[in-house]
Amino acid sequence: MTTNKMRVGLVGSGYMGKAHAIAYRNAIAAFAIPQWQLQCEMLADATPELAEMKAQELGFNRSTGDWKRLINDPDIDVVDICAPNFLHKDIALAAIAAGKHVYSEKPLALNADDAKEMTEAAELAGVKTLVGFNYIKNPTVQFAKQLIERGDIGDVVHFRGVFNEDYLADSNLPFSWRLQKQFAGTGALNDLASHLVQLAIHLVAPIQSLCADLKVVHQQRPLAQGENGVGHVENDDQAHMMVRFANGAQGTLEASRIAWGRKNGLSFEITGTKGTLIFDQETLSELSLYINEGNPQTQGFKRILVGPEHPDYQAFCVSAGHGLGFNDMKAVEIRDLYQGIVHNAPLWPDFRAATQVNIILDSVVESVDKRAWVEVEQYDGEQK
Amino acid sequence: MTTNKMRVGLVGSGYMGKAHAIAYRNAIAAFAIPQWQLQCEMLADATPELAEMKAQELGFNRSTGDWKRLINDPDIDVVDICAPNFLHKDIALAAIAAGKHVYSEKPLALNADDAKEMTEAAELAGVKTLVGFNYIKNPTVQFAKQLIERGDIGDVVHFRGVFNEDYLADSNLPFSWRLQKQFAGTGALNDLASHLVQLAIHLVAPIQSLCADLKVVHQQRPLAQGENGVGHVENDDQAHMMVRFANGAQGTLEASRIAWGRKNGLSFEITGTKGTLIFDQETLSELSLYINEGNPQTQGFKRILVGPEHPDYQAFCVSAGHGLGFNDMKAVEIRDLYQGIVHNAPLWPDFRAATQVNIILDSVVESVDKRAWVEVEQYDGEQK
Amino acid sequence: MTTNKMRVGLVGSGYMGKAHAIAYRNAIAAFAIPQWQLQCEMLADATPELAEMKAQELGFNRSTGDWKRLINDPDIDVVDICAPNFLHKDIALAAIAAGKHVYSEKPLALNADDAKEMTEAAELAGVKTLVGFNYIKNPTVQFAKQLIERGDIGDVVHFRGVFNEDYLADSNLPFSWRLQKQFAGTGALNDLASHLVQLAIHLVAPIQSLCADLKVVHQQRPLAQGENGVGHVENDDQAHMMVRFANGAQGTLEASRIAWGRKNGLSFEITGTKGTLIFDQETLSELSLYINEGNPQTQGFKRILVGPEHPDYQAFCVSAGHGLGFNDMKAVEIRDLYQGIVHNAPLWPDFRAATQVNIILDSVVESVDKRAWVEVEQYDGEQK
Amino acid sequence: MTTNKMRVGLVGSGYMGKAHAIAYRNAIAAFAIPQWQLQCEMLADATPELAEMKAQELGFNRSTGDWKRLINDPDIDVVDICAPNFLHKDIALAAIAAGKHVYSEKPLALNADDAKEMTEAAELAGVKTLVGFNYIKNPTVQFAKQLIERGDIGDVVHFRGVFNEDYLADSNLPFSWRLQKQFAGTGALNDLASHLVQLAIHLVAPIQSLCADLKVVHQQRPLAQGENGVGHVENDDQAHMMVRFANGAQGTLEASRIAWGRKNGLSFEITGTKGTLIFDQETLSELSLYINEGNPQTQGFKRILVGPEHPDYQAFCVSAGHGLGFNDMKAVEIRDLYQGIVHNAPLWPDFRAATQVNIILDSVVESVDKRAWVEVEQYDGEQK
Ligand SMILES: NC(=O)C1=CN([C@@H]2O[C@H](COP(=O)(O)OP(=O)(O)OC[C@H]3O[C@@H](n4cnc5c(N)ncnc54)[C@H](O)[C@@H]3O)[C@@H](O)[C@H]2O)C=CC1
Ligand SMILES: NC(=O)C1=CN([C@@H]2O[C@H](COP(=O)(O)OP(=O)(O)OC[C@H]3O[C@@H](n4cnc5c(N)ncnc54)[C@H](O)[C@@H]3O)[C@@H](O)[C@H]2O)C=CC1
Ligand SMILES: NC(=O)C1=CN([C@@H]2O[C@H](COP(=O)(O)OP(=O)(O)OC[C@H]3O[C@@H](n4cnc5c(N)ncnc54)[C@H](O)[C@@H]3O)[C@@H](O)[C@H]2O)C=CC1
Ligand SMILES: NC(=O)C1=CN([C@@H]2O[C@H](COP(=O)(O)OP(=O)(O)OC[C@H]3O[C@@H](n4cnc5c(N)ncnc54)[C@H](O)[C@@H]3O)[C@@H](O)[C@H]2O)C=CC1
Repeated sequence: MTTNKMRVGLVGSGYMGKAHAIAYRNAIAAFAIPQWQLQCEMLADATPELAEMKAQELGFNRSTGDWKRLINDPDIDVVDICAPNFLHKDIALAAIAAGKHVYSEKPLALNADDAKEMTEAAELAGVKTLVGFNYIKNPTVQFAKQLIERGDIGDVVHFRGVFNEDYLADSNLPFSWRLQKQFAGTGALNDLASHLVQLAIHLVAPIQSLCADLKVVHQQRPLAQGENGVGHVENDDQAHMMVRFANGAQGTLEASRIAWGRKNGLSFEITGTKGTLIFDQETLSELSLYINEGNPQTQGFKRILVGPEHPDYQAFCVSAGHGLGFNDMKAVEIRDLYQGIVHNAPLWPDFRAATQVNIILDSVVESVDKRAWVEVEQYDGEQK
Repeated sequence: MTTNKMRVGLVGSGYMGKAHAIAYRNAIAAFAIPQWQLQCEMLADATPELAEMKAQELGFNRSTGDWKRLINDPDIDVVDICAPNFLHKDIALAAIAAGKHVYSEKPLALNADDAKEMTEAAELAGVKTLVGFNYIKNPTVQFAKQLIERGDIGDVVHFRGVFNEDYLADSNLPFSWRLQKQFAGTGALNDLASHLVQLAIHLVAPIQSLCADLKVVHQQRPLAQGENGVGHVENDDQAHMMVRFANGAQGTLEASRIAWGRKNGLSFEITGTKGTLIFDQETLSELSLYINEGNPQTQGFKRILVGPEHPDYQAFCVSAGHGLGFNDMKAVEIRDLYQGIVHNAPLWPDFRAATQVNIILDSVVESVDKRAWVEVEQYDGEQK
Repeated sequence: MTTNKMRVGLVGSGYMGKAHAIAYRNAIAAFAIPQWQLQCEMLADATPELAEMKAQELGFNRSTGDWKRLINDPDIDVVDICAPNFLHKDIALAAIAAGKHVYSEKPLALNADDAKEMTEAAELAGVKTLVGFNYIKNPTVQFAKQLIERGDIGDVVHFRGVFNEDYLADSNLPFSWRLQKQFAGTGALNDLASHLVQLAIHLVAPIQSLCADLKVVHQQRPLAQGENGVGHVENDDQAHMMVRFANGAQGTLEASRIAWGRKNGLSFEITGTKGTLIFDQETLSELSLYINEGNPQTQGFKRILVGPEHPDYQAFCVSAGHGLGFNDMKAVEIRDLYQGIVHNAPLWPDFRAATQVNIILDSVVESVDKRAWVEVEQYDGEQK
Repeated sequence: MTTNKMRVGLVGSGYMGKAHAIAYRNAIAAFAIPQWQLQCEMLADATPELAEMKAQELGFNRSTGDWKRLINDPDIDVVDICAPNFLHKDIALAAIAAGKHVYSEKPLALNADDAKEMTEAAELAGVKTLVGFNYIKNPTVQFAKQLIERGDIGDVVHFRGVFNEDYLADSNLPFSWRLQKQFAGTGALNDLASHLVQLAIHLVAPIQSLCADLKVVHQQRPLAQGENGVGHVENDDQAHMMVRFANGAQGTLEASRIAWGRKNGLSFEITGTKGTLIFDQETLSELSLYINEGNPQTQGFKRILVGPEHPDYQAFCVSAGHGLGFNDMKAVEIRDLYQGIVHNAPLWPDFRAATQVNIILDSVVESVDKRAWVEVEQYDGEQK
């Protein structure tokens, strides 16, 4: 089921909502998408007032304080979910029921069971789905994928991934929904490690088994301004995993939301039998590559600045090394969404792929309970 | 003279034309500019066919193969000049004559005399002008300016600036208009050092005297495909300047278009009596800052990732360190243009400021001829 | 038991033997040690000829092809063991029996039982012991320790350590004793992770429990030149650990000897409740430090170049940032050895501390067998 | 004239004196120099007491408070001058008169005339000379030289060198001999730029013409503790040069002693027709190299860690990337000195080569006086 245009209904206009709004426009000019085919049609937020203000700010034609109205609006082709995690399921199921395509922010759901329910509903309804794991859309990361696939670093034998930020490092930051299981699910695991897990699967192979460790470091926090007392933090500040991939490679994955100094500290190092590559999102437009070839005297890590020779860069700039930003990755994601919805291209990572991430996150919790390695269910290979 | 909207007429839709097109859209969502107030109205290019194709790709409503028609179109409020250097003057003078605001790419003109003529015409007509020295719009560079102005590094005593790229490093790249004086003016000097000069003035003080060196390294190049023979390169591959600023500080500025490995190698290091700051455009979202204070044991250059605490970053992202791209700087520039045209804010760097850059570039040529230091005419302080 | 001089008997004059020889001399001038108090007296190697050649090259007075003669020589005060791992035990026990102080390279032994036997013998005999975990002697790392101890980064909540090299990354490198359990013990674990474990304990707290993963990636290798067939690799190319420290902090430790591009890739990142510090041995003379204090606008990782303000640097150079090398760390270690032997200062890490490392490495193997977390015996806190 | 041993007489035991003392010992073990052939024989300093104390600290056999006695001692083969600049001439001329080889710290003299007098005396006497421009002895820099000589980066077209430190950045640091022309000569120029000039000539080609700028930024400083009033600084805090090399290449050289944050900030970037190399002394064990070859997609600056494949590294360590320190460069220098004196190898940079540096520094002053370009006398090519 495709349409000849993609009129967007955005639900939630906070941090990610704005990033999407910028990216829709960015994508039109960068990827030569006809304006009439990509329209920022309606924006829903928690109240009509907020929604109306944001619609004006972000350049949406209409607004509503009730996401159900957006979903059922006949002039909406795709529902874009930028609401908090715990709302993803209800909004997505309703959108699917209304026959709309769904573009959801990550993590897809609070747990694997919900994610499977969403996936199966979408597949049954035959709507297109896409989940916002934007880091894999970065031209630099796409290039890393290319290098791996064409064998430049040989067979991958090791993956180390870290996603550290410090947005909750200050223990005086107030209690919030992000710290409660019912609203956020797990903590750094769901919020940050979800990206890493998706990257690891994408770049290496399925994760077959894992052993993990989670810790709540700051166990209580003051209630938000105006309230007295403390809130008890329910989910992990720091998360660790050791994994084994389907191809035999080993890996370690770590995430923290209390790692002072790290702002978008998503990095990975992938070692193969012929070479190694290193990426760090804080310098998102470069990749370091070491290949064991040629004169040993001149071997070293090459710092490659992303440029027109690499996937999807040229849409933004014809000169190498001029640098892409966070929102540019989202523009690539939206180009994909457009290609999927308007030109029936395959969309990835779809709900099924994102469910696999949720399954792995659930396995982490299981491993922590058992203090031992656990096997991981394979779901994303099944259908598609 | 302001209008209540800014309908854009873009002349030239190559490298910079597309960057502008992306930025217009980007700015709407990032800076909450009402859509009806900022419209991509018409695009002119060398032929009607090219113009029409590009208008569709870049999301402009109408197109023309004749920039004079664009200039005289009643629904155009501002003429955006992204055509090659030698056309800037004619287009700008015509636009001014038609009472249009003018937003021109740098360098403003091929020489200081032309630039002065353009400046005086614009000031007489009372139209707004802005020149695309985008690097100063980068939130990181704005922050550098802030640090300097509030005295964090004390009195500036030294500026070193380098702008190196390798776009002509390969001596087999064909001859083109960029290598001819009548079309491009000087070489690396006009193309790259112009940015550096503008940054130096902006961040330090007026340049009062200078001594320079220019060199054509690859003196001939093959003619473009299909043609036989060689073309004789008329302008500099490498340019050097030693300068003295009005505040007594010393500086060195260098540019090269044949510096292998440098892709957007614009960097500067500014030393003051209390500290030093370092910037490198290839990692455009960070600034290194050294301040002589506190325990000597823990002194060092701080790598500051640009974030919401810094000027104009928050429009793009609420989280620090997520990284801005080249086109985001242009979006800030366009926000300024909008504020100038629709809300009558002062615009900077305007034609007068850009003329000062052209004057300095002319002084470079004079110094090279004399093999000695020369004094620099001060023009931009005069009116405004 | 101290002596008024330290006449050294070196056993093994390969890689580390030479590093020690350089460092003995270096230490004399750097730390103003009287020449007569520190003498390079005798060198033992596998054959008399080799020993004699090396003694001349490395500046030792006498030589022998039999380490037992060295040990029993009356003019030797300390036996310095730079022979392969499997010889450490026999040489050390014999030296202790002869009443000599012992300075051994790491890892102390092939397993914890051997290490305990050596420790107990040394303590009973009352000789001084020191083990060559040189990385903690680096002024930069000493400074890191200082920062942690005085609370600059608050309470440590996380340690991530990696020690990657590529000395066996090429799968065509020949089979050798390093790949056999009886001669080397475990692989990357014993050779590289031993340093990391020692650093982690030193900088954070005792390791109380762990879960680990080991893998032999290149399972067979060609026999050494001249021989036909392949050798079967018995020990790990890659080693992973998740740990919990006595203070509640979490950690991950990894080592690899097949990580292309990493030459001395020992790095760690330590996060506390107030800040973070980062170290990388490939740039051994700098430390990155982030502290959450002051204006958020100017927060960032500070790159601190080690200098005279930091421990033990000034002995080498009065100017900051001039850089120390690998052998300089050994000179600090030898200064400690001298202080211990001639001036009865406490020596650290001694055999008992090094035994704790061996215990942890044994726990790794146990965890891998059980595919689960294991508790770690605490030995080094017991006596001293 | 050679001797079969090299008994050293050290004059001056401050910063450099100690560095030399460490390096003599380091060199014995690193380069397998027989102990009896390299002896730290006598140390002279300003007073007998100081000399005696230092001799003990630094491991010299004898001491004297009068450098003339050292020079005339029959058991001294080479006089090593680590006294302040203004003493170099007298000590060197006396040593030469006594038939001793001379190893002098840089800059050779306060001006070119003195340097020529010293050179001619030494050549007439037939003694060996060496000047302590240690940065070119760094294995990393030797490797850079190799790369250039074998054409890896093509023909050199550009050199940019900077030598910035902050040892006088604090304007409250007291007045001293370093700030007076009669004792120090020029300022940052003599102290820091001298190294850069020597490197530039060594790595590129003779300097044929130059244009320069010098500035005293902090014009007065408090007198040293105990004294009242201020001292008037006579020499440059900041020095700039634009140069043209004999091969046609352009260059810029800068030095500052007031550049906050730079500790040993000697860096250079050399561009050729095929590639570029970058070096920074603050990370002295690595070189960045860009070569225009192979797939454009994987081009980038390679960070090469110095190792046994590179000149003179293996003497210190058999593993790559383990890092050399400042004093290790001096050990290479001393190996050269030993080879020259004991084995009659050519020594470089000798007094003649160092005189060329002094000539260029004098040309800088001339250019500043004239505010114009000047031609440079070529002296070092004449004899040898
Ligand atoms: N891909 C990425 O890199 C990132 C993804 N995210 C994901 O994006 C989602 C949103 O997170 P943020 O934008 O950071 O949160 P936010 O708190 O900034 O924004 C949430 C928005 O949802 C709105 N909202 C709340 N309840 C609503 C309701 N009932 N109906 C309609 N709107 C409602 C809020 O008013 C707000 O506009 C989360 O799932 C998060 O995990 C967040 C940050 C980065
Ligand atoms: N601010 C910055 O960082 C940069 C500024 N520039 C400046 O932008 C300007 C354009 O440069 P590029 O975009 O690199 O050149 P380009 O060659 O990529 O594009 C020039 C455009 O002008 C069009 N054009 C040529 N003749 C025309 C005519 N008679 N009428 C209408 N259109 C015509 C061409 O067809 C083409 O679309 C130059 O002045 C350059 O200095 C260029 C690159 C970066
Ligand atoms: N602290 C550190 O960073 C490092 C420590 N090491 C440790 O140093 C020790 C030696 O390793 P390498 O120097 O790399 O090995 P190597 O193979 O380079 O040297 C071993 C030396 O021992 C000699 N040897 C062998 N059998 C002997 C015998 N029966 N009697 C006397 N000498 C004998 C060999 O001839 C050779 O001279 C090992 O325990 C290793 O783990 C090694 C490298 C780095
Ligand atoms: N190659 C390099 O990288 C460096 C070279 N140098 C050079 O080394 C030389 C010495 O500089 P520093 O060691 O920094 O100075 P310093 O002030 O630390 O040491 C000078 C030494 O000379 C002694 N001295 C003074 N008058 C004397 C006399 N009449 N007789 C005997 N000794 C006397 C002083 O007591 C002191 O021990 C200078 O020429 C300087 O340019 C200095 C630093 C680095």
